[in-house]
Amino acid sequence: MNWTPPKLFLTAITSTAVAMATAPVSAHAEAGSPIYGITIPDGYRQWEMIAPAEEAAPLNELRVVLGNPIAIKAIRNSTLPFPDGTILAKLAWKRVPSPEFAPASIPGTATTVQIMVKNLKKYAATGGWGFGRFINGKPADEAQHQSCFACHQALVKNHDYVFTRLAP
Amino acid sequence: MNWTPPKLFLTAITSTAVAMATAPVSAHAEAGSPIYGITIPDGYRQWEMIAPAEEAAPLNELRVVLGNPIAIKAIRNSTLPFPDGTILAKLAWKRVPSPEFAPASIPGTATTVQIMVKNLKKYAATGGWGFGRFINGKPADEAQHQSCFACHQALVKNHDYVFTRLAP
Repeated sequence: MNWTPPKLFLTAITSTAVAMATAPVSAHAEAGSPIYGITIPDGYRQWEMIAPAEEAAPLNELRVVLGNPIAIKAIRNSTLPFPDGTILAKLAWKRVPSPEFAPASIPGTATTVQIMVKNLKKYAATGGWGFGRFINGKPADEAQHQSCFACHQALVKNHDYVFTRLAP
Repeated sequence: MNWTPPKLFLTAITSTAVAMATAPVSAHAEAGSPIYGITIPDGYRQWEMIAPAEEAAPLNELRVVLGNPIAIKAIRNSTLPFPDGTILAKLAWKRVPSPEFAPASIPGTATTVQIMVKNLKKYAATGGWGFGRFINGKPADEAQHQSCFACHQALVKNHDYVFTRLAP
């Protein structure tokens, strides 16, 4: 005879699965990122848009960088280095074909939210920047965070370690 | 003997050319769009980000749609049809390779700003939407505006004539 799970048990599993599948990437992360202790800032989804970007395969993503008011003021005024308190948030989604308009690609599943926080004293060893990379609202592992600064340092040291420019 | 233009004349030409080349697309349009009389709304560049998109060749553009507070509230709540007062602003740039990070494409020259305004009474003949397409802050010609509603009607009538969805 097969074991029949009680209905409440199944409901709990289903609810959890649905919650996990639909949990927005924007959910506030409980834990901070390895190395830097950065969390996803409240309200970041409402921040002003700095610029979009696209990342080719294999990632194949559309991205938008948003900035908090300190970041926006600095980037509009071409202020370098960025002042303490600057926060940049990069949102990324899989790039998928629009089902309604053939020439267009649009955001599919959200993949990562990536945060950069400027605090010259706290993050002195990494150009004044702390990094956080979040997948489904949870910080990625330490190995991924080890790679952040090395790449920013190698490629965009002359722009205070920030790739993104303000889109006109 | 060749005619030598006075220096002031050359300076005037050069200044005008530079001004035209560098005029931000975000400049407030003096004239309204043909058919609909829509202008570029003040402060639209500060509006909240709804979603990015990419348009394939020949346009080869990166785009971001921003919305005014009425638009954002409606799209967050999946309110259809969009209420009167909704304004959507689509910003577009040529998609160019990042000079700093090979897998990425970033915004190049700004190309168009496209505005949709919901006013059920004023724009009753076009699903309640007025359209404005601006190039360097100036409205495109009437022929371009004739094509707006036909395409939105054919492809996204079931989403109140709006292509863009909120990116998660």
